[in-house]
Amino acid sequence: MVACGVVRTPAEEDIALRLLQIEQGIEEWLDRHRPDKVAVERVFAQHNVRTVMGTAQASAVAMLCATRRGIPVALHTPSEVKAAVSGSGRAEKAQVGAMVTRILRLDAPPKPADAADALALAICHIWRGTANNRIAAALSRVREPRP
Amino acid sequence: MVACGVVRTPAEEDIALRLLQIEQGIEEWLDRHRPDKVAVERVFAQHNVRTVMGTAQASAVAMLCATRRGIPVALHTPSEVKAAVSGSGRAEKAQVGAMVTRILRLDAPPKPADAADALALAICHIWRGTANNRIAAALSRVREPRP
Repeated sequence: MVACGVVRTPAEEDIALRLLQIEQGIEEWLDRHRPDKVAVERVFAQHNVRTVMGTAQASAVAMLCATRRGIPVALHTPSEVKAAVSGSGRAEKAQVGAMVTRILRLDAPPKPADAADALALAICHIWRGTANNRIAAALSRVREPRP
Repeated sequence: MVACGVVRTPAEEDIALRLLQIEQGIEEWLDRHRPDKVAVERVFAQHNVRTVMGTAQASAVAMLCATRRGIPVALHTPSEVKAAVSGSGRAEKAQVGAMVTRILRLDAPPKPADAADALALAICHIWRGTANNRIAAALSRVREPRP
């Protein structure tokens, strides 16, 4: 199962309090959904440095909550996610939303757009995991000593 | 009292595990020293973007641990810290170490250099707090209605 939710915190709020609210939101989901894995976006400081710092700090909280419970954390870059669902690492936000809707057979694109991004990340993780497992299985067959 | 310690985590370790180790280190100190306030460096992405992301994530963990216990968190920029202890916002690392040694009447500069930086941050916070309180007190006297 792929679970998805969006925690919103007021932008004018103190950063330390916002991180605490994010932690509480994530803890509630981990309690409710008991995931086997958590996928987190790997953050790069490319465009808007100010925004990216907040994203890096929020993602740190997500990683911390998962690791504290022994849940493995996987990081994927935004381009990996876009490429996984749309075939292009430079896909537009709307394209990602459309593909998530199609892949998960939803009636309408998930809202807010952040929810679509989170679902794309989960899909990316599952698909990459499957591909990696197949490659590993194929390699182990190749490497097996012949009878 | 000013308490200071350095948590080191192996650079080759998984980022999620490193954040967890930082959390455990900070929790131990909070248990041991029961601080009234926690001062954290305000991180800017100026020079080395890669390093700064890690610093932002580690500082998120520190803020989270303090806020979770209801301890107020204050953020100070590196230039505020340098200016507070040395009089110049562009002071060199060695100069900061020398001033921390003098202010706290230590026999030798604290090692590693990160410990000196942490002590400078604490000194900055205490001095700025005192200055702010004096200004507030002076203002309240000025504003008091005359008898």
